[in-house]
Amino acid sequence: MFDASIALTVAYEGGDFSGFARQQGQSTIQGELESALRVILRREVLTTGAGRTDAGVHALGQVVSFDVMEQEIHERSMDRFRTSLNALTPEGIVVRRIEVKPVGFSARFDAKEREYRYRLVPGQIEPLFLARYAWWVPAQKPLDVTGMKAAALHLVGEHDFASFCVAKSAEGKTTMREVKQIQLFGAEHLGEECVVIRVVGNAFLHSMIRVIAGSLVEVGLRNRNPEWLAEVLVARDRRAAGQTAPAHGLTFWRVRY
Amino acid sequence: MFDASIALTVAYEGGDFSGFARQQGQSTIQGELESALRVILRREVLTTGAGRTDAGVHALGQVVSFDVMEQEIHERSMDRFRTSLNALTPEGIVVRRIEVKPVGFSARFDAKEREYRYRLVPGQIEPLFLARYAWWVPAQKPLDVTGMKAAALHLVGEHDFASFCVAKSAEGKTTMREVKQIQLFGAEHLGEECVVIRVVGNAFLHSMIRVIAGSLVEVGLRNRNPEWLAEVLVARDRRAAGQTAPAHGLTFWRVRY
Repeated sequence: MFDASIALTVAYEGGDFSGFARQQGQSTIQGELESALRVILRREVLTTGAGRTDAGVHALGQVVSFDVMEQEIHERSMDRFRTSLNALTPEGIVVRRIEVKPVGFSARFDAKEREYRYRLVPGQIEPLFLARYAWWVPAQKPLDVTGMKAAALHLVGEHDFASFCVAKSAEGKTTMREVKQIQLFGAEHLGEECVVIRVVGNAFLHSMIRVIAGSLVEVGLRNRNPEWLAEVLVARDRRAAGQTAPAHGLTFWRVRY
Repeated sequence: MFDASIALTVAYEGGDFSGFARQQGQSTIQGELESALRVILRREVLTTGAGRTDAGVHALGQVVSFDVMEQEIHERSMDRFRTSLNALTPEGIVVRRIEVKPVGFSARFDAKEREYRYRLVPGQIEPLFLARYAWWVPAQKPLDVTGMKAAALHLVGEHDFASFCVAKSAEGKTTMREVKQIQLFGAEHLGEECVVIRVVGNAFLHSMIRVIAGSLVEVGLRNRNPEWLAEVLVARDRRAAGQTAPAHGLTFWRVRY
C-alpha cells in the first residue's frame, strides 16, 4: 500500500509541549505533527520518532518518519510540503529538513547513533538568554571540569546503566547500553558562558542523560570524586547516582542513520 | 550629599519591556531597576543608562549608574546588593555586575565606546532557538557577505549619519558620529547558524544600527551593490537608506569606560 517513507528533521522548544509522544488531550510534538500531516495528506498518519523526549527537553535534530503513497509525494514538492508543515504546526516546532526514504524506513529502528547535549551555566551570575536552554548551577568556585571529564570516562563503553535509569521503565527490559562518547567543553551562546556535556550512543534509557548530567555535576561541585561514577555504575541502583538534571538543559542534538 | 556612584552591568530580554527609558505606566528596564532600588535604599533613586535602547532591543552589557551615600554602600555587601536587585526585578532583567565608582560617575557621559551586535539568520530554514534573538531573512541563495563587508567599510570613520537616523530625533542636533569598527562574521548559537554585524563607536543616533543592518541586508540580497552605501551616506536623507531592521535582532553588547 505504501511506496516510500518520509523523514523529517525537527527542532522544537521543549518548554512549549508535554513531551514528544502523542497523548490524548495534550499538546505534544508527535501529536502536533500528526494533526498537521492529517490536514496536508487528508488521512490519518502514524509517525515514528527517533527519541521519545520528555516534557521540557528541546530538540535540534529529532527525526520523525512516516510512510507515504506514490502520488502523495509526486503531487507536491518536498519544499512546499516542509513549508506547509511549518505553517500548520505551532511556533515552537520547526521542520528543518524533509527527505524521501525507501518504504519502511523507521526513524527509530534504523537509527545507528543518537547525540544529546546538556548545557550547564555554573557560577554566581544567573543566565538570561540561556535561562531556558541551560541548567544554572550557582557554584561559589568554578566547576572542576577536569574531574568531570575523568568521571565521564568511566561511563564510556558498554555497561549496565540501571543506576542511571528511572526504575519503572527498566522493569523486565535490559539496561545494558553502549555510550560511544562523552565530551565536556566550554561554549559561549548569546554572550553567556556554559559547559556542554555531549553524549553519543546507539540508544539511551529513560532520563539517562539527565542522571548522567546530575551525577557529573556532583563531581564538578567536588561533592564526589571522579571514581565515584565507577561505583555508581556497578551499584545498578538509581539511588546510587546523582539527581536527575532539569529537562530544560537537555537538547536532542542529532541522529545518524 | 553623595559620596560614591554605583555602576550596574545589566542584561535584559528586550521583548519583555517597553524599552529602556523610564515611562509612566509602562514596564521599562530603567523603571524596574529604579523601583527595585527604591525598595532596597528606601528612597527615590534616579539612574542613568549608557544607552536608551528601544522596545524589543536586548542587552548583554547595558550599564546603569546612580549616586549613593557612604552608609548605603557600607551597610551591605555589593554581592548582597546585586542578589537583592535580581530578586526584586522581573525575570527578563539580570544584573550581572555591580561596581563602586567615584561620585559623579555617569554610565552615559563617561562612556568611551559602545558596542552593538545585530544577528541575522539567512536562508530557507526559519530559526527556532534564535527566533527571538535574530532577524530571519528568508533568502533563496546565501547572503553576499563579502559584498556586505565591502559596503560596511564605507561607514567606518567619522561621517554625517543623517541617512541612518529617524528624522525626528535628528532635528536641530548634529548627526555626525564616528563608527570605529564594523565587522561581519558567521556564528553558531544553540545549534543555529547566523551572521553577526558587530558595530563599535563612541555614540549612535536613534535606530542607527538597525538602519545600517537593514541597508547591509539589501547588499547581502544583491538588491544593491556595496558602493550604494557610500551614496546613502552622502544623501543625508533617511529615505535613501534601507529598512530599519527589526529590534529583536539587536543586542547592546558592551560599554567601555
